[in-house]
Order: sequence, then structure tokens, then C-alpha cells
Amino acid sequence: MKLLYPNSLVFDPSSLEGFGVSLHQYDVHKPIPEELIDAEIIVTWANTNLADAAKRMRNLRWIQSLFAGPNDVLAAGFSPDIKVTAGTNLHDETVTEHALALLLSAARKLYEMRDYQNQGKWPGHLGGFLPDRPKGSFTSLKGANILMWGMGNIGRKLAPHLIALGANVRGVGLFEEIIDGIQVQTNDALPKLLPQTDALIMILPGSKATFHALNAERMKLLPNHAWVINVGRGTCVDEDALAQALHARTLGGAALDVFHTEPLPASSPLWKAPNLILSPHAAGGKPRYSEALVAENLRRFLAGQPLKHDVSAGGMYAAPPENKPALKASL
Amino acid sequence: MKLLYPNSLVFDPSSLEGFGVSLHQYDVHKPIPEELIDAEIIVTWANTNLADAAKRMRNLRWIQSLFAGPNDVLAAGFSPDIKVTAGTNLHDETVTEHALALLLSAARKLYEMRDYQNQGKWPGHLGGFLPDRPKGSFTSLKGANILMWGMGNIGRKLAPHLIALGANVRGVGLFEEIIDGIQVQTNDALPKLLPQTDALIMILPGSKATFHALNAERMKLLPNHAWVINVGRGTCVDEDALAQALHARTLGGAALDVFHTEPLPASSPLWKAPNLILSPHAAGGKPRYSEALVAENLRRFLAGQPLKHDVSAGGMYAAPPENKPALKASL
Repeated sequence: MKLLYPNSLVFDPSSLEGFGVSLHQYDVHKPIPEELIDAEIIVTWANTNLADAAKRMRNLRWIQSLFAGPNDVLAAGFSPDIKVTAGTNLHDETVTEHALALLLSAARKLYEMRDYQNQGKWPGHLGGFLPDRPKGSFTSLKGANILMWGMGNIGRKLAPHLIALGANVRGVGLFEEIIDGIQVQTNDALPKLLPQTDALIMILPGSKATFHALNAERMKLLPNHAWVINVGRGTCVDEDALAQALHARTLGGAALDVFHTEPLPASSPLWKAPNLILSPHAAGGKPRYSEALVAENLRRFLAGQPLKHDVSAGGMYAAPPENKPALKASL
Repeated sequence: MKLLYPNSLVFDPSSLEGFGVSLHQYDVHKPIPEELIDAEIIVTWANTNLADAAKRMRNLRWIQSLFAGPNDVLAAGFSPDIKVTAGTNLHDETVTEHALALLLSAARKLYEMRDYQNQGKWPGHLGGFLPDRPKGSFTSLKGANILMWGMGNIGRKLAPHLIALGANVRGVGLFEEIIDGIQVQTNDALPKLLPQTDALIMILPGSKATFHALNAERMKLLPNHAWVINVGRGTCVDEDALAQALHARTLGGAALDVFHTEPLPASSPLWKAPNLILSPHAAGGKPRYSEALVAENLRRFLAGQPLKHDVSAGGMYAAPPENKPALKASL
């Protein structure tokens, strides 16, 4: 049995030895070579050869993507019989760190300091003796009401850092529950939660169900000083409504790592929107601990056990099943 | 007995009731009024009337500054018999948060993203699929060797946040010791520690002993990719040497909240130095929990007990005493 692993990241194949599977590196930008075309397992990362692979790899049984959302694999035309597993968790640390960086940059106005520096001007109004956390402002995580929209692995990883800095953290997720001590409610609670929010952190996956989750109506519920941080998917935010709110100063600001279209088109009103921090889909993109996930799933595959993060059989990227009302109601 | 509290910040005098001391707010920018001139206690914050107060307040016995480093009080000409206590701890949270913001902005290159955004350019080279933490880079706190120079209250507050993000934290302080699980060594260890450092966080007080603590010679010991974060005092860094190192790319970058001269003079080569993040002394300047410190010290004062953070009798801002060789050696 052949397992193909990608040349698009540092990946140590010795972590997959001991299973009796033959391990072969392949180039993610070239057609799979003839001598590897009968592989049953392929690990993918940043591939441009998936459509070709979907046509030619007739023995393929399992695709392990290292993306948290393997939309590329799901759209490439592979047979629906082939298992697809996602790189869930591999991006938790990097996205957590980036979200924290964006949030702190927003609170501490580092972007505005940068603008002054570039003009050779001392941003004195942002330093010296200032009131601590005046009402109707977001200047510190301490005591700030932070709402995390999406309480998956990344949300769970990020929350403790926010709490350690003194934030009051609440979550919006698929079910009403307590996750690691954090009160999580469903979308139904948004009309009550959004008006109490100083910073909204969006970590939603891209799907039909989450399209424009933050629309104009919900944006209006946020206080004028509130910030929106999006490290999920760009489609979850109505960008036109966001640009309007920023220009109208009915939002404090937005730090976006993801956009409807990336790179952000030159025509987007977001480029020049006040208090808009642009980050070029830089939160993730650097999987960690890939080998451990692949090894665990390879063991399960060989044992005939269910694979971890299987998205081919109705996972988070599939359409919400009709018989799950709680899930439908909340996303 | 009269206690004067300043009008330069939100300060709740009810926290000082119950001691039988009469409490009076005063304007920090005007001469102390005649009817308050016999006060024995004054709390100061961002005052411009200290020289006048030093001449006219003949009954003064204790000055509680809310600055961590009350250089203004110490230089105002008050009688040396008057106790001076510092606002140690009141700035730990704010400086910690700002230092973390600067460090993350450095690692995640938010300042460079901002420059691209301002030019209407998508900073694609900073996003998408990138190698995770390539050798000879500082792109994440995870696994980074972070050296904290100055292990006082702020350092102790900051360290757990860095550790939680995966950093390897070591400290340089006055004595060889373990502080909250962190190995702290003296300046003698710098030649060994600096070459292993990905980010150096300086949190030193300003004094003769710390003047140019980071000089050209020590800067050369840092790797070419290393960042310097300074949230202590500007005098602790040789700014000319730093600007040269940044221009020569023998340092990864520097995020400075403090400078020799503030505002930074237009002539400074730091303005245009590559990978220089300028912050306008914005880390602190917003004391928290002032009332609790003043109340505790007022109780001690009335009880005749030693005051907390007394800097008038040879504290951290006094010259190092001759009989403390460890302290002399390390700063």
C-alpha cells in the first residue's frame, strides 16, 4: 500500500514508519507520476494537481488534507466513496496567535501609530497619560466583553489567553453549553449578546449556512465602539455593510484576515475604510503536528476504525442535515 | 490630617474613608491652594506643580506617586525627610498587555501588512501557505527563545502569557534565582544568553546603572533575526547603535515604546529604520487599582509601619549601595 505525502511543507515521513505502508513524497504542483498513481492514500497541502489526481488515481481510498477546511479536495471531483479527512487542530495555535495579535493591535491602536510613524509624526494622542478604559471604548482586553462566534478548536484555544488578560469571554456556537467554563449560546442569543460586545471574534467555517452571518442587521446591534475580528472565512461577513459601518463610524473597527475574494480586489471599499486592519489570510497556512495526525489516522485506517475529522460523511463542511434542528437554528 | 488626591485621573476617595483623614481633590496643574498647603500627604499623578509644592508645603511628610518611577517627585526639590512611595504594580497590567501587543505585531509582521494596506497593495508574501517558523526567523512565540531583561512586577506578569503561547522564557535580573518557575540570571550571563535569543524584552527602570544597558557590543551578540522590545526606559538602549543595526539588517527589528527623548526628535534615524515599530510611550500611563495601594499605604503611614514601594530610602531609583555587590554587578 502506498501513501503519498506532499513536498509543500516540512513533513517527516519517519513518523509514519512501522505500518508496513510505503511512503513516497510527491510534487503538489505536478501530475502524480505514473509509478505512484496506484496509491491508496494521499496527504494534501496547497495542491494544484487535485483535478488531475481525481481523474487518474483509481485506487485512492483516503485523502488526508492538512487544511482545516479542505474545500479544494471536496471540489476537485474525487469519487464520493473516497474518505476525506481534514487537518482540524493543525491550525489552532497559529490562528490563535494571529487572532490575539489582531485583537491587541486593535485595542492598543498599533495600526494608527504606524500611520503616524510613516508620516514622521509622533502619535502623542495615543500615549502619555490617558484615562484607563473610558466608557464606550475598546482600549484593553481587561474587563472587555469579548464574544467568540464559533467555539470550535480555535475558539477553545484562544479563549484562555483572552481570559488571562482579563476579558469577559462568551461564546456563540452550535449548542447551548458550557465549554471549558465559557458560556456558549446559539445564534438565537445574538440580539441580546451583540449590544453588550466590545469585540466580536469570528471563527466560523465557510459554508452556505454561515454566509453573511454578520450582516447589516446584526452589525447594527454592535455598539459604535465595538471591533470585529474575523479569522474564520470572508464569506461570513457582509463586506459592503461592514465598509459602510466603518465609514459611518457605527463600528469601532475591524481586523480581517479573510475576505470574500482574496487578494482583496482594488475596488473594495475596505482598503480605505477607517480603523480597518487588513491581514492577507496569514493566521493559518502553517500546519503544526501534521505527522501526528496522519499517523493516528493511518493507524485507524489500517484498523478499519472511523477516521478523525472525517468531512466526507457529513462533517462541518457538508450541508446541515435536515434532522438536526439545533444545528439549523444556530448557523 | 489632610490628604490631597489628584484630579488627573479617575480616583475614588471613598476608598480612603474610615481613617479619620480629611480628603481633598486638587488640580495637578495649579499651585496648591492656601487652604490645603498644610497637608501632610499628597498623591501625585502627571503633576506640573511639584516645584511649587516643594517650596510651599512645609508640613508634608509623605508623597505617594502613582508612577512606577516617580522621577518627577524625586527631582522636584522636596526635603529628603519626606517619604516618597512609588506606584509600583499599578502599571503591570497595562504594560504587560502593550508589550504582548508589540511582540505579536513584530512576530506576525502586522506593521508591514499595514504599510502594504496603506499603499493599496495586498501583502501576499506575508500570508497564504508559508513554512512554519523557518530557522533564523522570529515569526511566532511558539518555541521562540524570549529573554526578559528586568524581572520586576511587569516581567513577572508578562511571562505567563508568553509561556502560554509556547515561548521559552528566561530572565535577566538582579540575582540568580528562579522566579515563578523562570530561570533568572544576572547581566554576567548576557554573553551566553543573547546569542540564543529570538526576542529580547527590556523592562528595565531608568537609572545611571541601566544607561545604555543594550549597547552596540551586546546588540552584536543577538542573532540577525532577533527583535528588541523596549517597554522600560529609553535610556536603556543606545539608539544610534540600534538604528545602525536595523539599517545594516543585523537585527530583525525593534518595537520601542520609550525613547531617550520623547517625542522622538525629527532628526532621529529611528523614524525610517527598517522593522522599527514606534509606540509613543503608550504602554503604561493608565494606573489601575490606585485607591487600594494608597489605602494600604495610608494605613501603614498612620500605624507607623514601613510604607510599600518606598523609593526615598534607597529603593530602585536610588544609587546602588556600595555594600550590595550582586546588585552592582548585574545592573
